[in-house]
Amino acid sequence: MNMIRSLLTGITFFILSSCFAQSNDSAAVKKIFDDILTHSTAYTNLRKLCKDVGPRLSGSAQFSRSVDVVAKMIKDAGADTVFLQECMIPHWIRGEKETGKLIIQGQKDHGLKLCALGLSIGTGPKGIKAIVVEVKSFAELDKLGNSVNGKIVFFNFKMNPTYLRTFQAYGESGIARRQGPAEASKYGATGVLVRSLAINLNDYPHTGTTVYNDSFPKIPAVAISTNDAEFLSNVISSGKTVEAVFKTSCKQLPDVKGFNVVGEIKGSQFPAEIITAGGHLDSWDLAEGANDDGSGVVQAIEVLRSLKNIGPQLRTIRAVAFANEEISGTGAKAYLTEAKQKNERHVFAIESDAGGFTPRGFRLEMDEAKMQKIYGWKKILNTYGLYETSPGGSGADVSPLKEIGTALAGLNTDSQRYFDIHHAATDVFENVSERELNYGAAAMAALVYLVSEHGL
Amino acid sequence: MNMIRSLLTGITFFILSSCFAQSNDSAAVKKIFDDILTHSTAYTNLRKLCKDVGPRLSGSAQFSRSVDVVAKMIKDAGADTVFLQECMIPHWIRGEKETGKLIIQGQKDHGLKLCALGLSIGTGPKGIKAIVVEVKSFAELDKLGNSVNGKIVFFNFKMNPTYLRTFQAYGESGIARRQGPAEASKYGATGVLVRSLAINLNDYPHTGTTVYNDSFPKIPAVAISTNDAEFLSNVISSGKTVEAVFKTSCKQLPDVKGFNVVGEIKGSQFPAEIITAGGHLDSWDLAEGANDDGSGVVQAIEVLRSLKNIGPQLRTIRAVAFANEEISGTGAKAYLTEAKQKNERHVFAIESDAGGFTPRGFRLEMDEAKMQKIYGWKKILNTYGLYETSPGGSGADVSPLKEIGTALAGLNTDSQRYFDIHHAATDVFENVSERELNYGAAAMAALVYLVSEHGL
Repeated sequence: MNMIRSLLTGITFFILSSCFAQSNDSAAVKKIFDDILTHSTAYTNLRKLCKDVGPRLSGSAQFSRSVDVVAKMIKDAGADTVFLQECMIPHWIRGEKETGKLIIQGQKDHGLKLCALGLSIGTGPKGIKAIVVEVKSFAELDKLGNSVNGKIVFFNFKMNPTYLRTFQAYGESGIARRQGPAEASKYGATGVLVRSLAINLNDYPHTGTTVYNDSFPKIPAVAISTNDAEFLSNVISSGKTVEAVFKTSCKQLPDVKGFNVVGEIKGSQFPAEIITAGGHLDSWDLAEGANDDGSGVVQAIEVLRSLKNIGPQLRTIRAVAFANEEISGTGAKAYLTEAKQKNERHVFAIESDAGGFTPRGFRLEMDEAKMQKIYGWKKILNTYGLYETSPGGSGADVSPLKEIGTALAGLNTDSQRYFDIHHAATDVFENVSERELNYGAAAMAALVYLVSEHGL
Repeated sequence: MNMIRSLLTGITFFILSSCFAQSNDSAAVKKIFDDILTHSTAYTNLRKLCKDVGPRLSGSAQFSRSVDVVAKMIKDAGADTVFLQECMIPHWIRGEKETGKLIIQGQKDHGLKLCALGLSIGTGPKGIKAIVVEVKSFAELDKLGNSVNGKIVFFNFKMNPTYLRTFQAYGESGIARRQGPAEASKYGATGVLVRSLAINLNDYPHTGTTVYNDSFPKIPAVAISTNDAEFLSNVISSGKTVEAVFKTSCKQLPDVKGFNVVGEIKGSQFPAEIITAGGHLDSWDLAEGANDDGSGVVQAIEVLRSLKNIGPQLRTIRAVAFANEEISGTGAKAYLTEAKQKNERHVFAIESDAGGFTPRGFRLEMDEAKMQKIYGWKKILNTYGLYETSPGGSGADVSPLKEIGTALAGLNTDSQRYFDIHHAATDVFENVSERELNYGAAAMAALVYLVSEHGL
């Protein structure tokens, strides 16, 4: 065989085998989608998690119960083994339902729809009362400086409605909730009202963690509904003096034991190479955590069920329900710690924590060569409408694995509805669409399958 | 200037001017999206249409009322002129709430969640009662032939859950509702049960028009919920004899006058060239028609409001609320008739009739050259996630304009949730997301703007 012919044969072989692989992959991905869109258990599992267990705040009895319930779900999905990973988790409790109102100069009082921020201290039984000062940026607060001493600071950071990627607005305005109380305390404020992180106007307060600064006093902090925030801002703009009164009895108890739930199916060819699909099991206490992140948990289980169902997989595949994502990420850290202790090879990890909505693609957090390998599957992914596959942060649960070189990804969803219900009483089962949930599970399963088949 | 230089200058000019146009277009489209995502009136208008008017079945008093309400909305949106186009519309009424049950050999009766199909005749006050025969295809029915004489045929055509484009499943299984009663009548059946056209399992019957064959008797036809369809199919599969009893009092009254509502803003440069954005004003009677097609109507109005708001448009832009899409399309025909009578130049028409969900792109029904022109804007459209822009049927309201050479389009949406609520009591305002509705309006406005700016 002369060199040219040999070269041509080589090229032909390469083209044919790559076409063949592509067409095999397409067929397998179609099988996964068909299976999940027809036989998924995700919606039934989500109903159980939401209705039989309910809210699953870290440290709560319901969180503990959810560990057992999910362990059984993963076993029923066909996992070869299911095990728990212990970690310490915070135990903050909300206490009695919060109350609060605005006392407005020359106007009748206005009751507030409010809730304590996660990790906030309580006000004590007498509550607090002070004049409200509104700020729309930290720069404004800094300018006011010590003049907010003894007052209640109202962080009115509106989520930018023009961002179609709503997480961008959450990232920007979310600093009010995360850092606002700490910042206000620097200047002697006695309490904080935060505009809820919802893009739309509604009557629900949206909770979430705040992070105090240990160098300054912890001050009570609550979220108020976006409708109340608009009302309050308008009254203040009119020049009237407004006092806020609120009472919260939330408090921090000692940490307790919690668990990640891990199930796996052993790889037939590369059992030592582990691929993780995950979501977080804990939720806020105000609702069922259906989208945040019950959806991610049942989707991860569905990935495992479906890939087991369509046949043996080359690499080991895990479904993981992480503990304590919402507060301090100790579940995610415990997962990394065990991986390091056991010297496990985690080749890929993907999480779903953007709600059970129609998937749009994947955020990729990995080196360029691996990213290119995934881009090589874009033609297949685009067939399923997964156009938005590009570099981006994977998510809080899988990102610690970066330390051991794991390629990471996060499921992108159509997030238009997410911040209507995020961390609020409306994050319930009824606000998840069965088909959208399954579509997301299928998207994750497809990518997990391709990585399992070809490595990274 | 030598020829080469002249050519190069020409090319440079072309490239620069096309880059300039592209960047102007991008800026204008961003302005449209920002405007609509911040200031849209679509959601407020939809609330009015759903809650103040309610269901708007052709021929009903509420339909008439909606004509006035929408005319005012279009005026308020900034239309230079608003006018009505008369057309005759059918007047079918449902009458009393339908009742029905299954009488099962050796088992207790099973109450049915059912509703008459649109245009169905009633059963008379005594109702009908007969043995049920299930078929899953027209071929099965043909095979059974005259053995269904005197029986009730149950068309159990399941929507295929594996189609991510759910309208494909609707098209396939929808023949049961549209033609099933006519087909069953050929063989002497006395009545028809149709499995509701929902992909998920729920307790709501989904109505919609059926079309009789004038050569055979009209027989009463009802839709039953998908849960009831599953139940009935299981009982029949078990070998038990099942009779169905149902009573409907629906009937056809004489046609009445109806109206399309048309509002327009005159083009500043090509006023004779008309671009139409439309939705249909009529709905089914079981719910508020929030997604079908209140959404399309308020989106069309929003297109007009926003494009007026950002400045004068080169071509004339219309918002049209069409009468009687659901039953016999006389509104759409009237729109064409007037266009022909007045010798109007309709360059482009787009409709939204796939629900107020996140837009995915556009179905294009036009000649190749025009399609290519639109593809030239794909880079801009993709920025807003509108990846799915390709040839496809535009929709029932604008498609008559094909006769006069109008380029047509339909808004593609993420249709995963559509058939949960389509034509059922659950198609209510609460099942529309404000942001998704606005996103769809912005997508339509962007395409209308580009066509207005550059022609087709």
